Amino acid sequence: MLAAARRAFTDRGYIGASVRQVATDAGVDPGMIRHWFGDKAGLFRAAMEPTVDPDELLAGVFDAGPDGLGERLLRRLLVVWDAAGAHSPMIILVRSAVSHEESTLLLRTFVSEQILGRLSGVLGGPDGALRASLVGSQMIGLVMARYVVRVEPLASAPVDAVVAAVAPTIQRYLTGEIG
Amino acid sequence: MLAAARRAFTDRGYIGASVRQVATDAGVDPGMIRHWFGDKAGLFRAAMEPTVDPDELLAGVFDAGPDGLGERLLRRLLVVWDAAGAHSPMIILVRSAVSHEESTLLLRTFVSEQILGRLSGVLGGPDGALRASLVGSQMIGLVMARYVVRVEPLASAPVDAVVAAVAPTIQRYLTGEIG
Repeated sequence: MLAAARRAFTDRGYIGASVRQVATDAGVDPGMIRHWFGDKAGLFRAAMEPTVDPDELLAGVFDAGPDGLGERLLRRLLVVWDAAGAHSPMIILVRSAVSHEESTLLLRTFVSEQILGRLSGVLGGPDGALRASLVGSQMIGLVMARYVVRVEPLASAPVDAVVAAVAPTIQRYLTGEIG
Repeated sequence: MLAAARRAFTDRGYIGASVRQVATDAGVDPGMIRHWFGDKAGLFRAAMEPTVDPDELLAGVFDAGPDGLGERLLRRLLVVWDAAGAHSPMIILVRSAVSHEESTLLLRTFVSEQILGRLSGVLGGPDGALRASLVGSQMIGLVMARYVVRVEPLASAPVDAVVAAVAPTIQRYLTGEIG
């Protein structure tokens, strides 16, 4: 059911996806989806959550401390996103965020809590929240430009080229001079 | 009619907006909108175009050459976007891009032709297109984080603080070491 839901949200967006269609794709009764997930919003949350496990996604990235963190973080995310393609939960979340208020809130919470929460352990400092939101801005922009809008040549550039170009940005937002 | 259309696309998104509703808001007959703009896609294009005049928007920004271009470009856009708020055509375009294929194409074309076209006169070089798309990625991410998802404290930060933090990124993508 969740795989069918992710496909539906990816292919048709939040507004276009329907509980009935997901049920048909998954070969179950719509009542079963309503029983387990409530409404479409509940199904959306459930479809996004289990595969966005930031602990697993980011395992080891923060352990080595702030040096080179920008590159490790960016490379990890790019490899995961490139492999998952349009079905990556983060990409679906960014796509959905602009068309639907609940997704906007989900993305805001994800960026604020998950990125900021993790970074604050490494960064601290009074400008930690601004640093985290700057990292978020470049990451969201990269998802949009590479996977959603597909601006070339960034969309087809190899991971190494993207890391070489963008990692210094992430690293400066994390630990460099920002004001 | 175009003001009503921009309001409708801003408030309800591309999918939620309707020609009939725009006609009611503008106090005209829906047939008049169909006569002038064809369908909803035509109305959307017309609503976006006249106020996204890149020549006017970017007047003077490129004249002084590549030094400090990142800061001039970023400051000009931030001032315009902050003033226009959610009704800024670029912000509507980014919001719409993810929910609707025609808008995705519009945004891709806008970023590729307008940003790249203008930058190539300043940059040249074999990596000009990659540089332009990197600038696009940070600009789109800034629009998303500051105006659409509203990640704090970036969403409320003064223009000077955002310029201080982000202009070095834009300048490096334009003229610095990227690989």
